[in-house]
Amino acid sequence: MGSEDVKVVSFWVSPFGKRVEWALKLKGIEYEYIEEDIFNKSNLLLRLNPVHKKVPVLVHHHKPIVESFIILEYIDETWKQYPLLPHHPHQRALARFWATSVEQKLGKAGWVAMATSGDEQERAVKEATEIMEKIEDEIKGKEFFGGKNVGYLDIALGWIAHLIPVWEEVGSIQILDPSKFPAITSWMTNFLSHPVIQDTLPPRDKMLVYYHNRKNNWPSAFRNSVKD
Amino acid sequence: MGSEDVKVVSFWVSPFGKRVEWALKLKGIEYEYIEEDIFNKSNLLLRLNPVHKKVPVLVHHHKPIVESFIILEYIDETWKQYPLLPHHPHQRALARFWATSVEQKLGKAGWVAMATSGDEQERAVKEATEIMEKIEDEIKGKEFFGGKNVGYLDIALGWIAHLIPVWEEVGSIQILDPSKFPAITSWMTNFLSHPVIQDTLPPRDKMLVYYHNRKNNWPSAFRNSVKD
Repeated sequence: MGSEDVKVVSFWVSPFGKRVEWALKLKGIEYEYIEEDIFNKSNLLLRLNPVHKKVPVLVHHHKPIVESFIILEYIDETWKQYPLLPHHPHQRALARFWATSVEQKLGKAGWVAMATSGDEQERAVKEATEIMEKIEDEIKGKEFFGGKNVGYLDIALGWIAHLIPVWEEVGSIQILDPSKFPAITSWMTNFLSHPVIQDTLPPRDKMLVYYHNRKNNWPSAFRNSVKD
Repeated sequence: MGSEDVKVVSFWVSPFGKRVEWALKLKGIEYEYIEEDIFNKSNLLLRLNPVHKKVPVLVHHHKPIVESFIILEYIDETWKQYPLLPHHPHQRALARFWATSVEQKLGKAGWVAMATSGDEQERAVKEATEIMEKIEDEIKGKEFFGGKNVGYLDIALGWIAHLIPVWEEVGSIQILDPSKFPAITSWMTNFLSHPVIQDTLPPRDKMLVYYHNRKNNWPSAFRNSVKD
């Protein structure tokens, strides 16, 4: 499938970029990976994504598509094998809802919890924990959000499984208490042991160094590119 | 089609709620409209949308769907007549991209331009104008973003046509100079004279009073519910 001419421009630790790689790999689509330096953005990135200037970018037949959730929809519509979104409109709406809501709320709260201290950190941990309670209800009794297989919502929330534990270590905090969130904990194990996911996870020690560094550069780092 | 059991919970001036009403009307789906007081939220709203507590909510067969863009996808997937999104995946990705990007960037800049003054206002007008330049390029040579008919992106950006002129008047600013943006100006005329749109627009004098009031309560109003 090299003839498909698919490229992914991303940054090694970007949770948004990982979504795109996971979706392509699950569908068996080969792609060329192009590493971007988000701290010194290339002309290629500025040309491909002039509005947001962010990774990831999917380039298919020389046409760029940006914003990870829009890219997931594109991938699911373009390559029909291994459908990512559920079939029924109401299930699809729920998957999209949890994907964007958790990104909005937990993405920010988790990052703040990692990077700050004192009252600000405490409030953020509390906020993150409240969102986890809602996710716990969603995953209860299921192997994956997608049912028996990794689907759209697993891909969308996958960053929880590999990023939150790193943020917890860097921030010396606990968001994911396994005794409070047994269903999420068991989903994390299922998700992280899937061969496609295992194959693409960045090395944990390198992630720890990266986020320690981001924490030390807070808040300027946050202002510039919390979304990269 | 009353048997479809469709309800829309919204607030009379909500641009997000208008999207949902426009989509249903274009598809010929009857619905019951339920007005919500966003300054004194009802138990109904809190029950239907416990995560964001915001309008609009579409209730179909007693199931709530929230977030206007997710509702548009649901409507387009549930009722196939009068397709809103384009057919081709790349065109669909572009429509979704402009819908969310313009909301993110112009929504905030336009509101700030209306509600503030001095340097802050000037910067916001400049930012809003820059986004307009990109939209001008997209609509050039077309009657609607959807081509010959009102489509997904027209619905998504429709708030520009009826809200920006009100914000301009309230803020004593100009964002949409017709000589700089002839294509947007002519799209606005086309869009606002469509019978479905005409039929659902809130009265301009009532909007002016509402936004004058929001401006006078800035910034607390912004912090609480810029998205309502």
